[in-house]
Amino acid sequence: MKLNKTQIHDINQKDLKSHESDFNYLSDKLTNKGLDVNSIVSKLKDFQVAIPSWALGAGGTRFGRFSFYGEPSSLEQKIDDIGVIHALTQTAGAVSLHIPWDIPSDYNAIKEKADALNIKFDAVNSNTFQDQKGAQETYKYGSLSNTSKAVREQAIQHNLDVINIGNKLGSKALTVWLADGSCFPGQNNFQTAFQNTQDSLIDIYKGLPDDWKMLVEYKPYEPNFYSTVIQDWGASLMLANGCGDKAYTLVDLGHHLPNSNIEQIVSILQLKGKLGGFHFNDSKYGDDDLTVGSIKPYALFLIFNELVYGMENNPQNPDLAWMIDASHNVKDPLEDLIQSLEAIQEAYAKALLINQADLKAAQLHHDVVKCQEILQDAYRTDVRALLQQARLDAGGALSPINAYRNLNVRNELITERGKNTVATGL
Amino acid sequence: MKLNKTQIHDINQKDLKSHESDFNYLSDKLTNKGLDVNSIVSKLKDFQVAIPSWALGAGGTRFGRFSFYGEPSSLEQKIDDIGVIHALTQTAGAVSLHIPWDIPSDYNAIKEKADALNIKFDAVNSNTFQDQKGAQETYKYGSLSNTSKAVREQAIQHNLDVINIGNKLGSKALTVWLADGSCFPGQNNFQTAFQNTQDSLIDIYKGLPDDWKMLVEYKPYEPNFYSTVIQDWGASLMLANGCGDKAYTLVDLGHHLPNSNIEQIVSILQLKGKLGGFHFNDSKYGDDDLTVGSIKPYALFLIFNELVYGMENNPQNPDLAWMIDASHNVKDPLEDLIQSLEAIQEAYAKALLINQADLKAAQLHHDVVKCQEILQDAYRTDVRALLQQARLDAGGALSPINAYRNLNVRNELITERGKNTVATGL
Amino acid sequence: MKLNKTQIHDINQKDLKSHESDFNYLSDKLTNKGLDVNSIVSKLKDFQVAIPSWALGAGGTRFGRFSFYGEPSSLEQKIDDIGVIHALTQTAGAVSLHIPWDIPSDYNAIKEKADALNIKFDAVNSNTFQDQKGAQETYKYGSLSNTSKAVREQAIQHNLDVINIGNKLGSKALTVWLADGSCFPGQNNFQTAFQNTQDSLIDIYKGLPDDWKMLVEYKPYEPNFYSTVIQDWGASLMLANGCGDKAYTLVDLGHHLPNSNIEQIVSILQLKGKLGGFHFNDSKYGDDDLTVGSIKPYALFLIFNELVYGMENNPQNPDLAWMIDASHNVKDPLEDLIQSLEAIQEAYAKALLINQADLKAAQLHHDVVKCQEILQDAYRTDVRALLQQARLDAGGALSPINAYRNLNVRNELITERGKNTVATGL
Amino acid sequence: MKLNKTQIHDINQKDLKSHESDFNYLSDKLTNKGLDVNSIVSKLKDFQVAIPSWALGAGGTRFGRFSFYGEPSSLEQKIDDIGVIHALTQTAGAVSLHIPWDIPSDYNAIKEKADALNIKFDAVNSNTFQDQKGAQETYKYGSLSNTSKAVREQAIQHNLDVINIGNKLGSKALTVWLADGSCFPGQNNFQTAFQNTQDSLIDIYKGLPDDWKMLVEYKPYEPNFYSTVIQDWGASLMLANGCGDKAYTLVDLGHHLPNSNIEQIVSILQLKGKLGGFHFNDSKYGDDDLTVGSIKPYALFLIFNELVYGMENNPQNPDLAWMIDASHNVKDPLEDLIQSLEAIQEAYAKALLINQADLKAAQLHHDVVKCQEILQDAYRTDVRALLQQARLDAGGALSPINAYRNLNVRNELITERGKNTVATGL
Repeated sequence: MKLNKTQIHDINQKDLKSHESDFNYLSDKLTNKGLDVNSIVSKLKDFQVAIPSWALGAGGTRFGRFSFYGEPSSLEQKIDDIGVIHALTQTAGAVSLHIPWDIPSDYNAIKEKADALNIKFDAVNSNTFQDQKGAQETYKYGSLSNTSKAVREQAIQHNLDVINIGNKLGSKALTVWLADGSCFPGQNNFQTAFQNTQDSLIDIYKGLPDDWKMLVEYKPYEPNFYSTVIQDWGASLMLANGCGDKAYTLVDLGHHLPNSNIEQIVSILQLKGKLGGFHFNDSKYGDDDLTVGSIKPYALFLIFNELVYGMENNPQNPDLAWMIDASHNVKDPLEDLIQSLEAIQEAYAKALLINQADLKAAQLHHDVVKCQEILQDAYRTDVRALLQQARLDAGGALSPINAYRNLNVRNELITERGKNTVATGL
Repeated sequence: MKLNKTQIHDINQKDLKSHESDFNYLSDKLTNKGLDVNSIVSKLKDFQVAIPSWALGAGGTRFGRFSFYGEPSSLEQKIDDIGVIHALTQTAGAVSLHIPWDIPSDYNAIKEKADALNIKFDAVNSNTFQDQKGAQETYKYGSLSNTSKAVREQAIQHNLDVINIGNKLGSKALTVWLADGSCFPGQNNFQTAFQNTQDSLIDIYKGLPDDWKMLVEYKPYEPNFYSTVIQDWGASLMLANGCGDKAYTLVDLGHHLPNSNIEQIVSILQLKGKLGGFHFNDSKYGDDDLTVGSIKPYALFLIFNELVYGMENNPQNPDLAWMIDASHNVKDPLEDLIQSLEAIQEAYAKALLINQADLKAAQLHHDVVKCQEILQDAYRTDVRALLQQARLDAGGALSPINAYRNLNVRNELITERGKNTVATGL
Repeated sequence: MKLNKTQIHDINQKDLKSHESDFNYLSDKLTNKGLDVNSIVSKLKDFQVAIPSWALGAGGTRFGRFSFYGEPSSLEQKIDDIGVIHALTQTAGAVSLHIPWDIPSDYNAIKEKADALNIKFDAVNSNTFQDQKGAQETYKYGSLSNTSKAVREQAIQHNLDVINIGNKLGSKALTVWLADGSCFPGQNNFQTAFQNTQDSLIDIYKGLPDDWKMLVEYKPYEPNFYSTVIQDWGASLMLANGCGDKAYTLVDLGHHLPNSNIEQIVSILQLKGKLGGFHFNDSKYGDDDLTVGSIKPYALFLIFNELVYGMENNPQNPDLAWMIDASHNVKDPLEDLIQSLEAIQEAYAKALLINQADLKAAQLHHDVVKCQEILQDAYRTDVRALLQQARLDAGGALSPINAYRNLNVRNELITERGKNTVATGL
Repeated sequence: MKLNKTQIHDINQKDLKSHESDFNYLSDKLTNKGLDVNSIVSKLKDFQVAIPSWALGAGGTRFGRFSFYGEPSSLEQKIDDIGVIHALTQTAGAVSLHIPWDIPSDYNAIKEKADALNIKFDAVNSNTFQDQKGAQETYKYGSLSNTSKAVREQAIQHNLDVINIGNKLGSKALTVWLADGSCFPGQNNFQTAFQNTQDSLIDIYKGLPDDWKMLVEYKPYEPNFYSTVIQDWGASLMLANGCGDKAYTLVDLGHHLPNSNIEQIVSILQLKGKLGGFHFNDSKYGDDDLTVGSIKPYALFLIFNELVYGMENNPQNPDLAWMIDASHNVKDPLEDLIQSLEAIQEAYAKALLINQADLKAAQLHHDVVKCQEILQDAYRTDVRALLQQARLDAGGALSPINAYRNLNVRNELITERGKNTVATGL
């Protein structure tokens, strides 16, 4: 299924007047405060977030998975789904492939399809946390960190294969999420595991094309429940530094211990020029992989405040690889992703409203009350009209969720694909 | 120092036009959605939050306290300070006394002063977590839960004294925050401590006037770091039930383990008709006692969603005793309280925007996406014009913080009181 | 595969002398302290823990599952496995069935097999967190709490069916673990969900035979990641009280928020006569389902201290239903269960060493140092010889793990069953 | 008050026989396992832990402090108290001074006193988290990280002064615990604060004598409740690396987010040659500063397992500065410290029992069950006779707590000093 601009344009008509009134009202207010509304809208338009190829079907937990209808059963169909989201939101112009779940059978065909939908190939993801059918070695006790050289070599080669696949599609980054760790005290020697990981990453890094980045993800626990080799940003940064200039840390919002101050981590990584990628989601308890902004939207805003600051002040960082990394256990995956994209754009827009010069001045005067007022003034502003304007300019829907429903997308997909298809992934 | 209506009226003039435009815009939008704006503004006006008598000076930590200038050094001055806040915000029409820090010397004088400032005497608070000079018995190892009968009796008598003091001032509730617990495994017998607490509370309850409530607070840890006798809502409810119909649970937002779902606790307590009081603050790590809404404003909104629901659907509950329970370590206490009041009113206003009928319908259809859209639509609305209108109607300031600064309140207080006065309290 | 007493007896010979020396040394020391060693050993012998029928195969996470060899593929084989564990440890004399995974096809045959292995049928477990093939209604949005009457009725009927199955086998308790909850704010009305759950539980309770118990489990999160209907002991107790005298709370060690004081919960439930069952495991982050005692053995000891106290002082409680509820992701399930049983017995034995009279006296004198000394003296004692003696007396192995390995059990099972069998369960 | 060897020798007589029997039994068992008991006892004897000069009086919380009798009111008396502990335990052969609370008035006198008691001067601690009387600048909004140059310079100078004081006493390390951070989002610019801290530390580092170390402590929160500049080991390490080879990370057990895997942090820091110091305590909720080993003794053992491994395998690290950093709210401070020292020695002794070669072999074979058995075998061993032997050899008490009580130390101190003296410190 493919949405065209006319469909979306037609759907927008009903709310256009109301939007214009909202936008004018807000635009005046912001202009009066000295903000450049056009520039903000333009930045929102430019901000594109990758959709991972595994996130288009229903998610589940170790206790099971409830089926969802009309899931994509091929990479082609997955890209179609992203096409739908992108047509509506104009924010999802990239796909992040997970290998081996989504190895293209016909590279040219896939590239053409993506191109037609205006979708780029962002970072490619390797998988050494599951055993593939027919694999020689098992990752049960680790992959890049394993004490067994044969296992490590298999895992390294897999990452090199992933680079190769990505290279054919125009990707420029490899994301390494390493689930390696241990479930019980004593199971692993921490130092050996760390050293093996460093060595393995260096071997992968050697195979990285010159214009690629390597993104090293961290996570404190799950699927290992006692220790994880790359448990926090400190470990990730150390390993990235051990590889070289093209290796960076990747922050996933759900991969932190309770009460972590994530915005500070983001800020310091940017200061050091080592923030390379970002996975969006939200959570209340652990790596819950909930819709972005559904639980702690203010924390997301604070993180975007740092990101905006870093994009302006820390040129030592590369363009970040943005991706949604959420799971869809009880919602239509496409609707869920649309809600996530909206929340990301909202947080970004609000962060762009912050008057950085005023904030700096208040900080210098230790005027803590004023600092808070500045942040809250931005956060309390209803920025939805800005997001709508950005989408409108780009040919998207004023309200992507409503348009999705009015256009009966899910029913169309079920008709096309049948009810009980299952997407590859978790 | 006392602010008069004219001062505030004059200060408002500058922003009046801009406010009217904002209010009209918002009012139209909400009215179009079927909301009764007048009713919302009226509810905001009615919503009054008590200021505790110990919160008008600088707070501190176990590592020390940084002084602040112009602190009130008598109960009279504390009520003056609340008068300032109430004049500006029209939301702080009550004081919650902490005994023995703030025992009135002249009851009539204090009542007249409070009356003149339109301030009521809300719940009175007892203190059995510190030893008072000359006390016969020590609370080092507990008070109401102590194995020593003499200690328990002293603590019971203190609570009865507090009721007596409150009674003379027109208070109608006693708040019992019991710090009792243990620092080490084995120190206490959990069952004995619980049973002693129940018996002591019953003795206090017996001394409660007919039209009073007893509010039983809970907290998982601090100042005891292994166990607390009333560690959670379950324990509090059990003890309240053990006392009788006039005993209720009091929820303090900071008194929960990491990741607690507080809104659910609030909801179930209301279902059972046992939510009696509420202490507002915010926190990132523990009982941090930060400004309300400064860390997790969306969680506050979700809690208000439940409170609004309960106020409409659970008549079995009493009118709640609302109070701010925050500490002011790096901000002017009065400014901090003004920011807290603003955040409370904001969350309340947003919760009032939720279309409960639509939400219920979406819940019945398991339309999870729609449920979220309904909540987020309310939350994303900029409601500040509603708050301003409510204040304006009541004679308060459009922007209390700006007015406070423009009126030079703190400098006046320093001139009046001197720099190095210290408020009683923590 | 079935182990016989002679095999075990023979294996024990090698270490018998060394054990006797250890036991005599320890026995003398404990006797000198006034302890009745025979009584302790006898209590250890009597302490039997149920093995759940789903815990005999490899576990996994939402990220996948690594296969393990020789898993049981029928209920008969599962009981055989428990038979092996029980023969070695003499502590696993019960099985806890999970329905519908393990519905017997021939009740008499199953009962005879269990009887021959000295295994009783403990609490039966219902499952309304997954959809079964061909089910009319889905539990995707809840079961006993669902707003749909049809779904609730299906879930109630399933529980009644489970009671019926258990009744034919001699079980005397139904364990209800309700995964119901929500993944997003607004998805559920907390009050409706709670009320529906209460009503559903009452309907199930009505079908409970007179000599049965209903055990209501609680859990803060997972598989739902925003709220769970029965989120803590307070909610469970409220629901149990709403059903009647035969309904109790069940504590699972992994089902708590970070830093919870579980021993206090256990103690208060016993005080109220409402502790009905206990699920053992260990965890570092969440419901990690690790081997009992592998992460926080001192916490387990403190819990046993309360359990021992309760068994002596709170006759209002029923005999507890003890069960291991752990997952085996990287270990041989049978070895893992043996390690868990050892840790349980160890904690129990150490708790039995505590001189309760001395502890009470120290508590009365607020001698906190002494209280700690008493607990630590018990905990620091090496009690393994007591456990060995208890096993020896009962015909078990001095070292169950070593015996299991020396007897080549896993290889035998693989030979019998083939490599790639898969046990039902998660 | 000063204990002499004869007093202690006499007190030991009563239990000597029983000890010898215990020691021989254990010694035989361990020797049979291939362990060198003499070497273990010798290592225990060598292991000395510093007592901080602020830990000899009662501690408190922000809610108050309960007095304790006979507290030392001068540095001389504090060193006397450490002398008592060291005489009994033979493990506390060092003091760690906190400046400005404990600036010596007569350096030679203090050195002679300490020397006579066999007490060394370990790391000195600076304090820039409180304002001292008459200070020019305030640390309310930070010290080394402050945006104000004057404040930073005052704080740098204070650290240089502390080095100077330590130098006169024979100290060889400066510990910097930086409380700097923020209470509210926006209050600080994270990057500026970090950069200022780095620059300030470099200035201090320049003043470090050649044979000194600088130890950089980290802590996630408290007294700041939104962010802390040096919030975790990653930040500390980055700052230490930014200073030079003599700068190291210091780990305090209580300074971590919930569920942190501290042993892994310790291990990786050792791998990198950057672990410089260690503060012992225990906690259940936050930085509770409870007696070492009173809450999570197994975690302490796992940490010592890494420390022992590191001391053997990571010569790139310096000799560690060990210190107890606990607070004494409900116990006699001296008894509390004795309990802490016992727990430290116990964990160390048990870690020394681990057969590292067997563990490594089991790790290589991914024999997770065996790895756990090896750790648990060591941990379950009752090692108290080893600790007693080490103390006995060195002239200490078999049971320091019992000796302390039998010798009536506290009463003597009260007689000497009076009841209501108060120690400087928190």
